[in-house]
Amino acid sequence: MGEFELIRRHFQRATPAYSAVVLGVGDDCALLQPPAGEQLAISSDMLVEGRHFLAGTDPQSLGHKALAVNLSDLAAMGARPLGFTLALALPAIDDAWLTDFSAGLLALAQQHACPLVGGDTTAGPLNLCITVFGSVKPGQALRRDAARAGDDLWLSGRTGEARLALERQFGTPWAGALTLDAAADAALQARLHRPEPRLALGLALTGVAGAALDVSDGLAGDLGHLLAASRVGACIDEAALPTAPVLSGLPEVHRRECLLHGGDDYELLFTADPARRGDVLAAGAASGTAVTRIGRIEATPGLRLQTVEGSLKDWPLRGFDHFGSRPASG
Amino acid sequence: MGEFELIRRHFQRATPAYSAVVLGVGDDCALLQPPAGEQLAISSDMLVEGRHFLAGTDPQSLGHKALAVNLSDLAAMGARPLGFTLALALPAIDDAWLTDFSAGLLALAQQHACPLVGGDTTAGPLNLCITVFGSVKPGQALRRDAARAGDDLWLSGRTGEARLALERQFGTPWAGALTLDAAADAALQARLHRPEPRLALGLALTGVAGAALDVSDGLAGDLGHLLAASRVGACIDEAALPTAPVLSGLPEVHRRECLLHGGDDYELLFTADPARRGDVLAAGAASGTAVTRIGRIEATPGLRLQTVEGSLKDWPLRGFDHFGSRPASG
Repeated sequence: MGEFELIRRHFQRATPAYSAVVLGVGDDCALLQPPAGEQLAISSDMLVEGRHFLAGTDPQSLGHKALAVNLSDLAAMGARPLGFTLALALPAIDDAWLTDFSAGLLALAQQHACPLVGGDTTAGPLNLCITVFGSVKPGQALRRDAARAGDDLWLSGRTGEARLALERQFGTPWAGALTLDAAADAALQARLHRPEPRLALGLALTGVAGAALDVSDGLAGDLGHLLAASRVGACIDEAALPTAPVLSGLPEVHRRECLLHGGDDYELLFTADPARRGDVLAAGAASGTAVTRIGRIEATPGLRLQTVEGSLKDWPLRGFDHFGSRPASG
Repeated sequence: MGEFELIRRHFQRATPAYSAVVLGVGDDCALLQPPAGEQLAISSDMLVEGRHFLAGTDPQSLGHKALAVNLSDLAAMGARPLGFTLALALPAIDDAWLTDFSAGLLALAQQHACPLVGGDTTAGPLNLCITVFGSVKPGQALRRDAARAGDDLWLSGRTGEARLALERQFGTPWAGALTLDAAADAALQARLHRPEPRLALGLALTGVAGAALDVSDGLAGDLGHLLAASRVGACIDEAALPTAPVLSGLPEVHRRECLLHGGDDYELLFTADPARRGDVLAAGAASGTAVTRIGRIEATPGLRLQTVEGSLKDWPLRGFDHFGSRPASG
């Protein structure tokens, strides 16, 4: 099976009626007609086997996640998806793998009205590169540089479960020591392998939130990017951090690692004027997404942690580094 | 050096004044403001070491080529570049390599007013994925499905030199047997490593040409895609094929292989009504690009070759297959 047959069989679908797609897969370029006057939001993520996912990862989950991490970037800008391209390097053509991968990928694409419009396939070490396009009204995008001292700091959902799932996958003793029934373990693994991009929340937050970004490399590390872009600092109230029951029983050092430096969360971290608390809660309710006020933006640079014990500690804005020594993470 | 420092040092540049970029590298998404009412043309190409280029390839040429092959897709749609994203997997951070790579990449980007707006970097086997965006007026895009029986078939520049350069690089005996002085050999290698995307010609052909595509996997193979999309056939006049002097001396079988099935040419292959011959020549002159009428579109499916000896032969619409056995091309 050649490149064109591969694309046709696994990735070509009828263009949905709702879409902005004028011309989809099969020409030199795809053609999209963006909504009149709107701006285009663009993000690109590359996932490498052995780095972002382990060899043997369930291909359906991988297809889901590869698109989800890109849609999460659109969510963090408050953008509405228009479409995406997929470039795929494959060590060999494995029909069963491609069937499952495209099923996971295209199911999420359909769920968010974000059609596959083009891309590339080639032989090579397994590598997935997705570029996603969305639209946002001029001036409405949720940027990183819009946080102001005095703003509330908010988080969607909760962090830490994906990291715990990863540590259990690696056989890390403290993580493996947790006894979970099969259903609880499956739910935990789903947080790592099937993140849900917060697109509805991102859209609902346009005009309400100040700055926003998505938490992919750990809460504290990504917060650091927001603080740097906005030239401000922050204080996080540890007791306010939404914590999954499975994390509550962990020793403090590991619980904090998961919550604050975990990675692979794909939640939205955003700021809003305290006068907009009602609007933020309404945006959460309208989008069916939990939102929690976890701290505040301060003029003093850096991060402080108001610990559950009541002390105030300077805390590192440390995230996950893709050139670091860890073999696989977000 | 972490991911963010790498991006800042090597890839972040001031946003040029001419550009559509509202927000460049450094947020969850880039933001572009496309020209009002225009359509968005999108293409994505992935280049893998050992497949599309050999280990040790000059990084400056590689940076040029990685963007050039994408810009060539915009050219083939008649689109004007708006910007591009780069996702890059690197086995290790090599500062000298990155300096040269980004120099080649960004010089071509500047030449065509196509700024880098975002992307991703990660560790992994060397892999470059570029996604490029352009704009085109509704109804003006040069699609593959617009060829009609009776149209002329045109080619920009000439094909075959990149393939000959590749065969010499591989040490193929018939290619190595050619004696070339250093300047001629360098010029030949430049055709392989530094293709020039035909953007000015593509723009000049909107409203003039019918169907178009870029020749990346061999003239006959890519023509096959155009013919299939338009449900027509074609006849190529072999004597009309523009042929570099370096190819003229080759044995017939190798000359034809290079001209008709070579790969890596990045020329435009397009059709036009015979009544538009003057307009096509004017578009070529206005864009400083040679254009040659090499045959005609016919109602009968398939390809015929009117050979230099005067016979008419059925000819295979064979191209280069990226899952084939060749170690590196197209």
